[in-house]
Amino acid sequence: MMLWGASGAHEIIIETPKHVGNIADLDDSQIAKVITCCIDRFVDLSRDDRFKYVLIFKNYGIEAGGSVLGHTHTQLIATPVTPKRVKEELIGAKRYYHYHDRCIFCDLIRQELESGDRVVLESDGFLAVMAFASRFAFEIWILPKKHSCDFSSMSVENRMHLGKIIKKVLTKLKIGLDDPAYNFVLHTSPFRRENDKAGYWKTIEEDYHWHIEIIPRLTSPAGFEWGTGFYICSLTPEETAQYLREVKLDG
Amino acid sequence: MMLWGASGAHEIIIETPKHVGNIADLDDSQIAKVITCCIDRFVDLSRDDRFKYVLIFKNYGIEAGGSVLGHTHTQLIATPVTPKRVKEELIGAKRYYHYHDRCIFCDLIRQELESGDRVVLESDGFLAVMAFASRFAFEIWILPKKHSCDFSSMSVENRMHLGKIIKKVLTKLKIGLDDPAYNFVLHTSPFRRENDKAGYWKTIEEDYHWHIEIIPRLTSPAGFEWGTGFYICSLTPEETAQYLREVKLDG
Repeated sequence: MMLWGASGAHEIIIETPKHVGNIADLDDSQIAKVITCCIDRFVDLSRDDRFKYVLIFKNYGIEAGGSVLGHTHTQLIATPVTPKRVKEELIGAKRYYHYHDRCIFCDLIRQELESGDRVVLESDGFLAVMAFASRFAFEIWILPKKHSCDFSSMSVENRMHLGKIIKKVLTKLKIGLDDPAYNFVLHTSPFRRENDKAGYWKTIEEDYHWHIEIIPRLTSPAGFEWGTGFYICSLTPEETAQYLREVKLDG
Repeated sequence: MMLWGASGAHEIIIETPKHVGNIADLDDSQIAKVITCCIDRFVDLSRDDRFKYVLIFKNYGIEAGGSVLGHTHTQLIATPVTPKRVKEELIGAKRYYHYHDRCIFCDLIRQELESGDRVVLESDGFLAVMAFASRFAFEIWILPKKHSCDFSSMSVENRMHLGKIIKKVLTKLKIGLDDPAYNFVLHTSPFRRENDKAGYWKTIEEDYHWHIEIIPRLTSPAGFEWGTGFYICSLTPEETAQYLREVKLDG
């Protein structure tokens, strides 16, 4: 089978020289260094005109498709097209923006902070909430409270804040759910190039908001999910948020 | 959390009174009876105006989300909306039809029979092929060779033919891949009602073609798949088709 014009990049970021399995066991500042490394690689790959998107993700544990070697690492895949799921999100965000003149994610942050029911943690700069329409039980989103479509523009200070909240959230998962397998994906805007002729992403800086999605792999998607694209989730985000809020962290 | 206007149905079809785990171990005529039962339930549920779609599916084995009880059964879920994945397929098929004036699935069957590279089995009335753009290794589609958008209009003769090819394909999987877990989903047209005011599915009888998708669960979708909606499949459909063609069936 021939593949025409296929191009891409796949990189592994090894998060520590020590043989540690879970990023939750690194300290905040080490996680912040991993974030800086991701940003550096993202910016470097953005210079390659063939690429439209870079997905940064982690697979932790066998059930999450993680490697048996188990030395903690983050992966990065550059694609020559904007991925389907990202595109669906971008289109949805743009539609909301055109209708309401506001970023849907900023509205979500405001509402979640007001109600508090689905909030897991709030920190300087970031909010961790259970996804309102969770596909999986304990699906957690981490969003920067200040609007930004592009994670690579994050300040050095915010990298420290993000490192802190990632460590706290993942430690709560580890303690509360007995070290579950999980996937971690970062959604940010595609590379914004001069030659966006169609003007497709003209308002992206205002309408899109980068964020992280964490999916613990407690159940396996089955026939209904594959056949429909709908997800059966047997716990409400309000229940799971309360459960994780009550998980105590040391220190 | 309130759910507005949520309605649905979930039924289990127990395929045999004997405690048999795998439908592949039933005989053709028993499988044909299961098909008839699915059709009867589908037709009955179609009379309920609240429902737009019925997904018929099977989860076999723990990795496929199957139950630990393991008495072979088929499931059926009625939804008040057309599922996302079905809609994407319907829209794609309609677009192809408007452009080419032909059903995309009929074209696929013609091309697959001509090339033969991805064919697993051909029988009276049906074709089993590896999906051209397989999401998963050994993703097999079974299609009726004669055009039809609606599986419930299948003749009694074709139910026997379908029972036979399902048994053969699943037995080849069982022998060739050491009894793997799999999901099995049936895609057919949504209920065609008089009040399709938007004329959305005006050409559906010509442009859509019902079929079965079988997904062995040999690997687990991971961060890249969840983050992008793209699937990494490490074996080509040509390789997997050849492998299954060479699996001998007794008798």
